[in-house]
Amino acid sequence: MNTLPRPRLDTSALAARFAAVRRQSMALAAPLSEADCQVQSMPDASPTKWHLAHVTWFFETFVLERHEQNFKPFDASFRVLFNSYYQQVGRQHPRPQRGLVSRPSLAEVKAYRAAVDQRIDALLRGAHDPSVDALVELGLQHEQQHQELMLTDILHALSCNPLAPAYVPGWPLAPVAPVPLDWIPVEGGLVEIGHGGQGFAFDNEGPRHRHFLRPYALANRLVTHGEWQAFMRDGGYRDARWWLSAGWDWVRAQGIEAPLYWQRSSAATHDWHAFTLHGLVPVDPHTPITHVSYFEADAYARWAGQQCDMPARLPTEAEWEHAAEPQQEARRAVGNFVESAALHPMPVARLEPGALQLFGDVWEWTSSSYSPYPGFQPWDGLVGEYNGKFMVNQYVLRGGSCVTPRSHIRASYRNFFPTDTRWQFNGLRLARDLE
Amino acid sequence: MNTLPRPRLDTSALAARFAAVRRQSMALAAPLSEADCQVQSMPDASPTKWHLAHVTWFFETFVLERHEQNFKPFDASFRVLFNSYYQQVGRQHPRPQRGLVSRPSLAEVKAYRAAVDQRIDALLRGAHDPSVDALVELGLQHEQQHQELMLTDILHALSCNPLAPAYVPGWPLAPVAPVPLDWIPVEGGLVEIGHGGQGFAFDNEGPRHRHFLRPYALANRLVTHGEWQAFMRDGGYRDARWWLSAGWDWVRAQGIEAPLYWQRSSAATHDWHAFTLHGLVPVDPHTPITHVSYFEADAYARWAGQQCDMPARLPTEAEWEHAAEPQQEARRAVGNFVESAALHPMPVARLEPGALQLFGDVWEWTSSSYSPYPGFQPWDGLVGEYNGKFMVNQYVLRGGSCVTPRSHIRASYRNFFPTDTRWQFNGLRLARDLE
Amino acid sequence: MNTLPRPRLDTSALAARFAAVRRQSMALAAPLSEADCQVQSMPDASPTKWHLAHVTWFFETFVLERHEQNFKPFDASFRVLFNSYYQQVGRQHPRPQRGLVSRPSLAEVKAYRAAVDQRIDALLRGAHDPSVDALVELGLQHEQQHQELMLTDILHALSCNPLAPAYVPGWPLAPVAPVPLDWIPVEGGLVEIGHGGQGFAFDNEGPRHRHFLRPYALANRLVTHGEWQAFMRDGGYRDARWWLSAGWDWVRAQGIEAPLYWQRSSAATHDWHAFTLHGLVPVDPHTPITHVSYFEADAYARWAGQQCDMPARLPTEAEWEHAAEPQQEARRAVGNFVESAALHPMPVARLEPGALQLFGDVWEWTSSSYSPYPGFQPWDGLVGEYNGKFMVNQYVLRGGSCVTPRSHIRASYRNFFPTDTRWQFNGLRLARDLE
Amino acid sequence: MNTLPRPRLDTSALAARFAAVRRQSMALAAPLSEADCQVQSMPDASPTKWHLAHVTWFFETFVLERHEQNFKPFDASFRVLFNSYYQQVGRQHPRPQRGLVSRPSLAEVKAYRAAVDQRIDALLRGAHDPSVDALVELGLQHEQQHQELMLTDILHALSCNPLAPAYVPGWPLAPVAPVPLDWIPVEGGLVEIGHGGQGFAFDNEGPRHRHFLRPYALANRLVTHGEWQAFMRDGGYRDARWWLSAGWDWVRAQGIEAPLYWQRSSAATHDWHAFTLHGLVPVDPHTPITHVSYFEADAYARWAGQQCDMPARLPTEAEWEHAAEPQQEARRAVGNFVESAALHPMPVARLEPGALQLFGDVWEWTSSSYSPYPGFQPWDGLVGEYNGKFMVNQYVLRGGSCVTPRSHIRASYRNFFPTDTRWQFNGLRLARDLE
Repeated sequence: MNTLPRPRLDTSALAARFAAVRRQSMALAAPLSEADCQVQSMPDASPTKWHLAHVTWFFETFVLERHEQNFKPFDASFRVLFNSYYQQVGRQHPRPQRGLVSRPSLAEVKAYRAAVDQRIDALLRGAHDPSVDALVELGLQHEQQHQELMLTDILHALSCNPLAPAYVPGWPLAPVAPVPLDWIPVEGGLVEIGHGGQGFAFDNEGPRHRHFLRPYALANRLVTHGEWQAFMRDGGYRDARWWLSAGWDWVRAQGIEAPLYWQRSSAATHDWHAFTLHGLVPVDPHTPITHVSYFEADAYARWAGQQCDMPARLPTEAEWEHAAEPQQEARRAVGNFVESAALHPMPVARLEPGALQLFGDVWEWTSSSYSPYPGFQPWDGLVGEYNGKFMVNQYVLRGGSCVTPRSHIRASYRNFFPTDTRWQFNGLRLARDLE
Repeated sequence: MNTLPRPRLDTSALAARFAAVRRQSMALAAPLSEADCQVQSMPDASPTKWHLAHVTWFFETFVLERHEQNFKPFDASFRVLFNSYYQQVGRQHPRPQRGLVSRPSLAEVKAYRAAVDQRIDALLRGAHDPSVDALVELGLQHEQQHQELMLTDILHALSCNPLAPAYVPGWPLAPVAPVPLDWIPVEGGLVEIGHGGQGFAFDNEGPRHRHFLRPYALANRLVTHGEWQAFMRDGGYRDARWWLSAGWDWVRAQGIEAPLYWQRSSAATHDWHAFTLHGLVPVDPHTPITHVSYFEADAYARWAGQQCDMPARLPTEAEWEHAAEPQQEARRAVGNFVESAALHPMPVARLEPGALQLFGDVWEWTSSSYSPYPGFQPWDGLVGEYNGKFMVNQYVLRGGSCVTPRSHIRASYRNFFPTDTRWQFNGLRLARDLE
Repeated sequence: MNTLPRPRLDTSALAARFAAVRRQSMALAAPLSEADCQVQSMPDASPTKWHLAHVTWFFETFVLERHEQNFKPFDASFRVLFNSYYQQVGRQHPRPQRGLVSRPSLAEVKAYRAAVDQRIDALLRGAHDPSVDALVELGLQHEQQHQELMLTDILHALSCNPLAPAYVPGWPLAPVAPVPLDWIPVEGGLVEIGHGGQGFAFDNEGPRHRHFLRPYALANRLVTHGEWQAFMRDGGYRDARWWLSAGWDWVRAQGIEAPLYWQRSSAATHDWHAFTLHGLVPVDPHTPITHVSYFEADAYARWAGQQCDMPARLPTEAEWEHAAEPQQEARRAVGNFVESAALHPMPVARLEPGALQLFGDVWEWTSSSYSPYPGFQPWDGLVGEYNGKFMVNQYVLRGGSCVTPRSHIRASYRNFFPTDTRWQFNGLRLARDLE
Repeated sequence: MNTLPRPRLDTSALAARFAAVRRQSMALAAPLSEADCQVQSMPDASPTKWHLAHVTWFFETFVLERHEQNFKPFDASFRVLFNSYYQQVGRQHPRPQRGLVSRPSLAEVKAYRAAVDQRIDALLRGAHDPSVDALVELGLQHEQQHQELMLTDILHALSCNPLAPAYVPGWPLAPVAPVPLDWIPVEGGLVEIGHGGQGFAFDNEGPRHRHFLRPYALANRLVTHGEWQAFMRDGGYRDARWWLSAGWDWVRAQGIEAPLYWQRSSAATHDWHAFTLHGLVPVDPHTPITHVSYFEADAYARWAGQQCDMPARLPTEAEWEHAAEPQQEARRAVGNFVESAALHPMPVARLEPGALQLFGDVWEWTSSSYSPYPGFQPWDGLVGEYNGKFMVNQYVLRGGSCVTPRSHIRASYRNFFPTDTRWQFNGLRLARDLE
């Protein structure tokens, strides 16, 4: 048996947190028109309007329907429209067609949000089953995940518009002194990883368990645009040596020759620009690389190792977590998360000892396939479909990104995507063996 | 050399017609939200917003750019965004991605319309090259075509919404006395078809030319829902005998078992409903069948012939035009066009002699491949891409539909679509040989 | 009612013809190994072994099963394996999987042929229903069609082998004096086309009927490699002006830049070679162009008209037939058919008056969609599926090719293929209007 | 640096082994005609003729070309034709088109084999670089892998033939007493896995390394047909609860409702038969299940755990290897490998203590993604492309199958396939946690 974790907050603090997180979703949608909120630019992405409604449906279905007296759905048809993939809750509207649902309107979805907000608040403020708090916290964690997706999905949608409109104008970058690459050694041994303490964590982060690590080193910072351009200039995208076989097939079939959202001013030049949430901007050499797939990250690591004659690779998720756990409080505090409003990874501002940029900026690809930890059991009940169902053919990313809410991330947090995913803020940090 | 026809209207009447047609497009969009106007439900359909902008681009590009003093584009980026397929005008935004262009907003498109309206009006009212009138008339004919598409495309988009929202509520059908099928004999011989008179016609309608016809008969009315249901009950969709080979492949590959937009109340029953611009309504037996492909129309005709032991078939376009031309004034006057606001084909109200429903209600599939008439020359200049480019692998439909503007149609008018097209208001009338 | 035509031969002459045609199929397969006979290089093509078996199945099913006393199938499983598309005869093995049927072996298929040969011969020599002769003749016409397909299909299969093996070595071309393009005027008027005389013809060639033709001119010879290379050098494959919209989409989607089977010695040069049944050979300028699609033929005609400032086009099938009928005896007699063993179109050997190369060399694309003639009725019974089922989305070709049996062709003969077909020996002749 | 392992055999024993393995490939092809050897039934499978040539190309390229004096290729064109995926060796013929290469003939490929056999033998018998022995051993291991593929690929090819021909007739099954499922507990702790001893092993099997295991239990035998049918009768293929999300999508998209090669006698009954190398046979309840994907194996385990109220799952590869290593000599000796000539998994003949059927019968799916062991380095040089290139999006299988050569397998052997693979002899054994 595995039950939802009890939140650390008392109920009234939880109600305040509920209000704040819900407000933040509306704030993220504020720069967008009704038409912007309608667009779905690929099956993997969803319209902003759908995100706003789906996270609300989650509260309605998993909290109100089970715990509100005399529950009546806000609109019975929303049950199918805004279910994502919960098979046991019932049917779902086909994912690739979310962008076709022009009704309910954005105004109706906002009314839906307001009604559910009021009812959750009332439920929390009255006498209620203790499991309600845990479910509300889960709903908030869920909504924070969708806040990140709202930004990555609207970035993709706007990138399909030849006018290259900005989500918000104004490019945050200030000039910096570049930070040289350094290697942080880690001893390893029989260590423990996985969530084991207090506070919320997803079922996939546990149980905490022993894992044997050989000595290894982590790069002190993320791979940068400038390093990536060296890989490109060296013909990295056209040289089979660096690529996994499946990656090489993917590069050729898709005609990949640069990270997603990069474009040249003209076919003849290497004057690269990147489309961002602030519009089209020149590529800055010290900024962490992002919007690269697992295949690209893995190929880059193999190439980079060859440059310095010392095999480099992606870290495993255990290596990453074991190195990040001790310093998570310090690094999270200064990380570039959504609250910093940069909405793009940023260069290291200042050289410090230890591994920098572990939290925020970009999700870091690890070489670990997303699979259950030893002894893993999904949460009981319907929410058991949350994570375990996806434990195949995906790879783990760690550390959060520039569009992740700061309060959402932990050293044990496991994000996961297929190997060809590029529209997320995914980047990488190198690792290598110490004999 | 083939030049655009001069309009019959003088310039001031043309300016009034311009204002009226342009107003009608806005009226058709009035029931729709910004989100409705954004949706593109398949590559063949376009968003309402795109239609509103594209027809405006047509006036801007073919009239203003060539004839306005000191022409400046309203927005230079619209040239690519709202070009449809004119290769010689330049690049086009990819058709399947029209629904992703959330900016310009609907309000900006309306401003674009207003600005071009004002400039065209000014151009017409001032001294201008005589070719301007012809180009404006062409732009209006073009806009009328897109008015029809706006309705067929929004019908398709709304049909993808599980809430089955109506474009406008209120079902127009009143009970009628059914009209029995009868055959109208036509003598044939060496006849003339094609546009030869005054007034606007597309280049593909001419030149008027001689064509030899054997004696034939046309059905006095369109095929109805009730007749189609008899075909379905007889297993028509599952019996290879009635189908062209390519049609049979299509039926099986797509799992077709009824006209587009039909759905059963439950899998077990044959209680069919159809999704219409007025929402979901029960199938009425006397209403003309619509939303059927060429393949279905052709198969139905073969089946229907077998029922009465007298080979039936679709008419050729020459047979249709030769029969329709003499009575075009009378039939057009009473036809069910967009102006009647039914927005759906309607049963014959009252038995009369001769072929009924030739104009309006549904486009009638003919067995004629869309090809150039003998001596055909496309219009000179850029507008020569209008029709001739499409003369392959499509079949001709005649007579206009319940969403066609009345002033848009003629006996010589040639509409054309591929054989699997179903989202248009396409139906059929039977024909047969007289020995 | 439309019944199969009675053959002109008496039964014993028919038996001799039966033996000769059947022998010819085996002769065509003689240069091929069992592995060659097994290969299916695309869904549109079939393995040689399948062709040899299918034409035998046709005799077994349509002649023996209906007319042999105490009929027993050679092997009951062949009924499904070697049926092509006759829905009413029963199920078919899926066409794209014909190349996977390694058993029965080639030897077993030859035994099948021998057994059916002996039984048909016995049937013909004994007392038999008069309809048997007509069915046997139909089977022979059918087998001749498949003889042509055996050669086009093996050419395609061998072209997929990087070793470029020849079906038979030895290139037949001798140097010639080029023949200048000339125009043969034809008066037109109310003419008759379609098969109306004695002898075998397919149901789709009739009934003979009146058709009105405006004055026109036909080119005196086929378009040549040299002319086609001028089109290519002028950027013909990269210039949207010449192409139908669907053709332009096809050219770009498929990356077409030359006729099928053409390859350059190196990417940098325009030193074109063509893969033929004799292996890889240099492109000769005076040889008729072949292996081009309808789209290419149509685009070439539009370009060619522009070169001489006189709109050129493909002929209609009526124009072709009306011009070819009077001279069919003379031209067929000297045409380059399979019997000449060139197995490739050949240059005009010597200038003569009138339209040359009308019969043999290459099938000539016409602008006519393949559709039923006025009054067309398919043959009664199962053989009615032979032609009528395919009368949609295909275009008519006329005149036979260098791999057609000479006795198979007529002025009224209608071949038909979709607009993107290239693996057949398809070429073109220009036509134009005379005012 | 990681170099190929030195074989344990001295050179003359190696020459004998070379001859024996090479003979075995020819013996496996003996029941097949030239047409059988030509067929490629899907892109993942290869023709027998290609396998016979490719393994020979491997010896020619990696041994002769590098170590034979005055090396000349047997045929220079084979370098491209029979390369599989070695990017650094040069171009490859496209994999899906291997079945189109009818020339060289089977006889020529046999001549190629004979010539290379003779030359390798001569090289071994003369003075030669010591690395030659290691390369020859690698070539033999490689050929043994292709021997297994020859059988799985021809099974797939024959399964596409509606005649259901047998590779070899005669069904080996004798009645047995069923063996009840039992659980073998394993203590775990910090164990070592990976190849560390003498003798040949692939680079992906090392280095030997420490790994922490919690206590677990393995089923004493493989899952059987009878157990699988209980899963099917319980609606297992139609119940989303048991499936990974990607597995559920796959089941529905492909319409999967039984293991590959299973068919019902009629749609109405559950009287299942399976197509095997011996033709179509009834499904025996005690025989190990095979031809199931990772998705199916994983879903079955979840269902099976629910039946006994004790979560069951697939073992990890470390759990499997740790349990199998101590008993590998004993179990391999009695395992059902290709040498037993059953060519199909067989029921446990007799109950014994410990985990049965660990070696032979079917490859056992593990829950482990195929990834590099800690400290993994690919072999140096071109052979480094052998394994490491494929370490993504595949899952590890262990233990060998009924078509694996006995001498080819080890406890540390890692086979790997994508999650939807079914044409291999893949099955499963259950595992569970001991708290």
